Amino acid sequence: MLPGGDLASGGVSLASLRQKWGSPLHVVLAEQLRRNVREFLAINEGGRIRGEVFYSYKSNPIPGVLRVLHDLGIGAEVISEYELWLALKLGVPADRIVFNGPAKSLASVRNAVARDILLLNINHREEIDVVVSVARELNRRPSIGVRVATSGGWTGQFGLPAGTGEAFAALKEVHESGILELAAIHCHVGGMVRSRQHVQSYVGEVLALADRVKTELGVELAILDFGGSLATPTVTNITDFDRKVAMAFQAPLPVPQPDASLGIPEYVRCVVEQVENHYAAQKRPCPRIFFEPGRAMTGNTQVLVASVLSLKAGEPKPGWAILDAGINLAESARSEFHQIFPASRMHEPRSCQYRLAGPICSPGDVISWSASLPELAAGDALAIMDAGAYFVPFATSFSFPQPPVVMLDGAVVKLLRRAESFEDIIALDEFDCRPPD
Amino acid sequence: MLPGGDLASGGVSLASLRQKWGSPLHVVLAEQLRRNVREFLAINEGGRIRGEVFYSYKSNPIPGVLRVLHDLGIGAEVISEYELWLALKLGVPADRIVFNGPAKSLASVRNAVARDILLLNINHREEIDVVVSVARELNRRPSIGVRVATSGGWTGQFGLPAGTGEAFAALKEVHESGILELAAIHCHVGGMVRSRQHVQSYVGEVLALADRVKTELGVELAILDFGGSLATPTVTNITDFDRKVAMAFQAPLPVPQPDASLGIPEYVRCVVEQVENHYAAQKRPCPRIFFEPGRAMTGNTQVLVASVLSLKAGEPKPGWAILDAGINLAESARSEFHQIFPASRMHEPRSCQYRLAGPICSPGDVISWSASLPELAAGDALAIMDAGAYFVPFATSFSFPQPPVVMLDGAVVKLLRRAESFEDIIALDEFDCRPPD
Repeated sequence: MLPGGDLASGGVSLASLRQKWGSPLHVVLAEQLRRNVREFLAINEGGRIRGEVFYSYKSNPIPGVLRVLHDLGIGAEVISEYELWLALKLGVPADRIVFNGPAKSLASVRNAVARDILLLNINHREEIDVVVSVARELNRRPSIGVRVATSGGWTGQFGLPAGTGEAFAALKEVHESGILELAAIHCHVGGMVRSRQHVQSYVGEVLALADRVKTELGVELAILDFGGSLATPTVTNITDFDRKVAMAFQAPLPVPQPDASLGIPEYVRCVVEQVENHYAAQKRPCPRIFFEPGRAMTGNTQVLVASVLSLKAGEPKPGWAILDAGINLAESARSEFHQIFPASRMHEPRSCQYRLAGPICSPGDVISWSASLPELAAGDALAIMDAGAYFVPFATSFSFPQPPVVMLDGAVVKLLRRAESFEDIIALDEFDCRPPD
Repeated sequence: MLPGGDLASGGVSLASLRQKWGSPLHVVLAEQLRRNVREFLAINEGGRIRGEVFYSYKSNPIPGVLRVLHDLGIGAEVISEYELWLALKLGVPADRIVFNGPAKSLASVRNAVARDILLLNINHREEIDVVVSVARELNRRPSIGVRVATSGGWTGQFGLPAGTGEAFAALKEVHESGILELAAIHCHVGGMVRSRQHVQSYVGEVLALADRVKTELGVELAILDFGGSLATPTVTNITDFDRKVAMAFQAPLPVPQPDASLGIPEYVRCVVEQVENHYAAQKRPCPRIFFEPGRAMTGNTQVLVASVLSLKAGEPKPGWAILDAGINLAESARSEFHQIFPASRMHEPRSCQYRLAGPICSPGDVISWSASLPELAAGDALAIMDAGAYFVPFATSFSFPQPPVVMLDGAVVKLLRRAESFEDIIALDEFDCRPPD
């Protein structure tokens, strides 16, 4: 922070960046990004690879951010033909790409198999037939994992239950296909993982299933892939109860307790040690251990800087602040608590509870029902924190063009994505500009 | 419908359009669009203008659709600098443009005032100062309305309560500014209006306020602007209760009763006659009457054609169908019931209840928890109906590029917006394509 009360990084005031780059503005914090990478890879200090990390492209697919991650040794976790294309365009070697998701088009499976990517994780049993037929057609033997759903983790369209025999049946089917290499169990638990107990629980289920694969199929899996889902400590889901209390009484939303959340190095060590200990105890070779962080890698590395366009007095006082950024750019703020700071007035007491609306003329365009801030004036900058996961991918051009993305690295500001122009929004359209008939 | 069971318009099967244009695909139904325009303008048959219609750009801002509307005499209702720019680019005369919304940037107010647009509706009192200062700076006398919130209508960031005196105070302030022309009351009730009683209730509140303006300020307002919000008859909001029942028991969601919903001509006549009768009874000149339809104009004029990528067996049977379009293209389907038809199997009994997931790897990517369909196979086309309002503006490029938009006019298919390419998604980015260091 600067002495005058400006939120800053590398001595650069975030609010002041608006003068050159406009508002709203995404600011990527390069040092925080590199720090997160270091924390994820700390397990490999000393030179032995104990954990491998593949960034979940869907979380924040800005090429300039991905460039930094890949340059520091992070691989790519992709869920679509587009993301596979982007990883290859960025020069990620095929053997550093993992392909997941429930919606793999035939074209994307063909591309992945033809390029011999590191791992393709089957989402559900019916996908096996598709991959088998592509493998036959291309005469390849792709490395295949099966996504499992552990107790309390995401299920529905995702994965096969680890506990019911369905996941094992799919693993067996892959193994017995004769053309697929059964390589992995994939477990992306979903939600926000914060505790050691939670991690130990799903890792344990994966290990039990891997044991069964060894015992019944005679296959020692080469990879255990633990997906992502580690929480950003300062972000929590907003409960219906807390939202209703904030709406009705403008009570402040509960502030997350970052210390109660597992940090990156502890999380990685927790998984790796549990797996290593399990295999060591059985004197079996330890598989490769994969992580696919999304929000934990980039969530806290980006700030969405927005401006107060106007105030609207109302009850309870002081009423509404209308911003130039709303759910068009911060959809996640509807369901997640994100800290929102007065970017150039950090020294002032935050004694007012504002409702913060965005610009898109929808009653759902509220990014906070009760934000603790100083008394605001039009033009004030707000910093919407932890905007580095699921803000950019969920962004729309609803009535307002999308903002630029800059990276702040020390005191250097680099443009990663320019602002969308009015012309850009209709660049794919065919139409006549003549006046109405 | 075609004899073989294909959903069709002008003899063209919607499912078959995928062969040339790919899937997913937005199909605009030109004849339905023209029919809706005719129904909105039917009140003016005989040549006397009794109602004027301004399309809510934010609802479906596809230039090729707007072109059709403007060519048939519809004006523009805009809520941002971008939309104002687009209307002007499409050749809409300034005196056919209404500017609304809570988030008018200074630049947009300057542009609107400098061009002498038809009407600028103040959203909240604090906006008056901005418009006054711009009017002074440019030495203009802009036509100004004040947005009011009627009983049970949208409030929060929108408008000033009609009943508390706040709206009247703002109207008075505009009038006494000395430089703004007090021209209108603006009432956009929000939500989905379906009944005559509902319409009569908020029209009555507006008339009462207009009477007070006449009595106390001596001003006969030139315009009463009744906004939009007329429902699409086949679309309803999904209640939490119905969603929970569908999630838990795969019970079909209640099908809307279109006959219970006010049609366009009846709605327009209802408003116009109430206003005309009110003024006739008092022997006062009737003001101009404005409508700003969004969903009622275009909601039912567009179909999102999607394909089944894969099936995933599960309980309750038959489980999941995974589509190539989800909330990335049909965000509204999370909260609204939209009919979903088996586009080339319309003759078959819809005896299965599928859960329909989209492709974006989020548990929220479910566009139906219980859709009544025949037993599906990969490749089947589904028609997601009433996709012409709030589908395109809320669309994202989350992991998958956005689809093309074509217009079906008789048997002629015309491209309105080409498919987004992989390159398009990163066209604004600056980055290095070199392999990782």
